[in-house]
Amino acid sequence: MSIEFWVSIGSTYSYLSVARLAAVERAHGVRFTLHPFNVREIMIEQQNLPFSGKPVKTAYMWRDLERRAARHGLALKMPVPYPLENLPFANQVAMVAAEEGWLRDYLVVTYRLWMAEGLPAGEDENLSRCLAELGQDATRVRRLAAGPQGVAALAEATWQARRRGIFGSPSFLVGDELFWGDDRMEDAVEWFRDRHRL
Amino acid sequence: MSIEFWVSIGSTYSYLSVARLAAVERAHGVRFTLHPFNVREIMIEQQNLPFSGKPVKTAYMWRDLERRAARHGLALKMPVPYPLENLPFANQVAMVAAEEGWLRDYLVVTYRLWMAEGLPAGEDENLSRCLAELGQDATRVRRLAAGPQGVAALAEATWQARRRGIFGSPSFLVGDELFWGDDRMEDAVEWFRDRHRL
Repeated sequence: MSIEFWVSIGSTYSYLSVARLAAVERAHGVRFTLHPFNVREIMIEQQNLPFSGKPVKTAYMWRDLERRAARHGLALKMPVPYPLENLPFANQVAMVAAEEGWLRDYLVVTYRLWMAEGLPAGEDENLSRCLAELGQDATRVRRLAAGPQGVAALAEATWQARRRGIFGSPSFLVGDELFWGDDRMEDAVEWFRDRHRL
Repeated sequence: MSIEFWVSIGSTYSYLSVARLAAVERAHGVRFTLHPFNVREIMIEQQNLPFSGKPVKTAYMWRDLERRAARHGLALKMPVPYPLENLPFANQVAMVAAEEGWLRDYLVVTYRLWMAEGLPAGEDENLSRCLAELGQDATRVRRLAAGPQGVAALAEATWQARRRGIFGSPSFLVGDELFWGDDRMEDAVEWFRDRHRL
């Protein structure tokens, strides 16, 4: 039994959840399964654009992220390049990584390079360094990510996310109970534990 | 020394913060000062409309509010009438209450009648019952709230909120450090305590 963790590279707060995933699992004795999807597609479709054209709220988001990253001991180099130009490709690579079993490491490393080193996820430099660190052949992975294993798989995952009522990233599902946001990660854990008598 | 709590009746999550304010103060040995303002005016101006025309996100918000209210032992009768038609007037009454020293009780009672009994804040039945419970003369309070002590005072408070970078309710300020959302209330307390060596 596990908690579903729906994640879209490109979301800022998802950095926190990805980076502290292993620690949360250890601390609470639970397991998450990762599900990449394209949150931008869903948000545009739902006209849910929390930051675009909203400078005051956006400035707050970065300050809040900075404070929360510091609390968790996570590096953040401001200003972070945002939004991601290659959001779809970053998540197409995630689909390949999911299929092949190296998704967790990919998420952790690509997010760290983006948030702590200023290299946008999904772009050449981030991908090259990330894939090298993971011991993956960049040419092979890029080719797969640009093909059906990336494109069609991501589209299908995004349809599943939509069907489950997901509208943002990170989202956590315990059965059909949805928790949205890094600040609901522990709530999802508690909900899961209550229902499984852990 | 106190934490500023900027609140706008009409915000759904502010119900939680208002209702648990006294308990949070007791638990942490801190004090909040309440500052009513008109969040709708600021949100419209900033094109920050998180729920309007967004049914999926709105449905989630109510479910999340329901879960969090239950966790704090707070009554919530779904569906809650929303949005508030008389949002400005509800907050004009709050300005009068602030001036006269009965704002806390007003917020607690008007929110309870709205969220737990389905009576929209700022409307006749909510106000009559609320003011009766607080021992206030409804005719006198309504007259003041419709005059400069309500209208101009609320406009001025809303300008102050804008100037401080506030874009939503509830907001907590510790000096210039802004925390937005009921789920950041404890973060504001922690920030305050760290800086005042409590």
